[in-house]
Amino acid sequence: MGREATVGPRSDPRTPDDLVGLAERVQQLCLRHRLTLAAAESCTGGLVGHALTEVAGSSGYFLGGITSYGDEAKQDLLDVGPATLERHGAVSAQVAVAMAEGARRRFGSDLAFAVTGIAGPSGGTESKPVGLTYVAVADGEGHDVRRYTWTGDRSRNKVDSAYAALELLLERLEPRG
Amino acid sequence: MGREATVGPRSDPRTPDDLVGLAERVQQLCLRHRLTLAAAESCTGGLVGHALTEVAGSSGYFLGGITSYGDEAKQDLLDVGPATLERHGAVSAQVAVAMAEGARRRFGSDLAFAVTGIAGPSGGTESKPVGLTYVAVADGEGHDVRRYTWTGDRSRNKVDSAYAALELLLERLEPRG
Repeated sequence: MGREATVGPRSDPRTPDDLVGLAERVQQLCLRHRLTLAAAESCTGGLVGHALTEVAGSSGYFLGGITSYGDEAKQDLLDVGPATLERHGAVSAQVAVAMAEGARRRFGSDLAFAVTGIAGPSGGTESKPVGLTYVAVADGEGHDVRRYTWTGDRSRNKVDSAYAALELLLERLEPRG
Repeated sequence: MGREATVGPRSDPRTPDDLVGLAERVQQLCLRHRLTLAAAESCTGGLVGHALTEVAGSSGYFLGGITSYGDEAKQDLLDVGPATLERHGAVSAQVAVAMAEGARRRFGSDLAFAVTGIAGPSGGTESKPVGLTYVAVADGEGHDVRRYTWTGDRSRNKVDSAYAALELLLERLEPRG
């Protein structure tokens, strides 16, 4: 099962502390259901892993992550197909899902999430502007993927992207109770 | 060539903003000398990669990183030998160097750094207390590794460890001019 949604930019600013608040809920749910988690980060550069590991006890469920800043790392370390990268580009729903699935396989985790986007200030094009970001979550049942277009600066876009990844993860975890 | 040093805890607190200041210097030197960089993070959970990618243009030299929070990820994704882990423990000079060398190989980068430590509050033992941290840098010529024992809380220890990794990297880069 796959789900895709498009969501606009946030009107309310998020802070790194907000990330840790979501990370606490992710940890609580993963530990309760004995689920392990892995990360695949591109534009966030490790920020989501940093937030998850701010919470004491995160080693009980968080196995680690791969930050694939370049296309080669996406192929070699996350097994994203060159045809997928070529056809859809590194910042696409297809690559976000492939990154999450790759991280899940590489770490042998129950769940994995991925973030890929253009944090700015450069790197944007007409069809893929600065701020365009995809977040994805994959587990044994399928995946969710969501698209955002942030309008902040590089640092703000990274925080908003990290927040969106943690939110999508929580939406996948919370129905488990 | 390998060098090892032991350094005590810091008296002056470091902040995440201080990390970005060092990241700017790392980027300047890597771009000047056309050197690529990869990361292997354990206790910092992605914080160093986050700091490096706060600087616009970091994709010009930073290829990415592997956050290996568990021993399995250190073996499977960074090629740290099981005998090295068994003999010296995950928080050791030997494993820090092996992680840096593993990241360098996996990403095909000129330079790589590694951080492994016990951020706390739990996980410490008499011989390996909370706060014990090793940082390492490897390039084609050899490696440096340095040991610290931080005395802050989890969050502070992560920032100090990230700062120490960036400092060691700069010490390896600066003699190139």
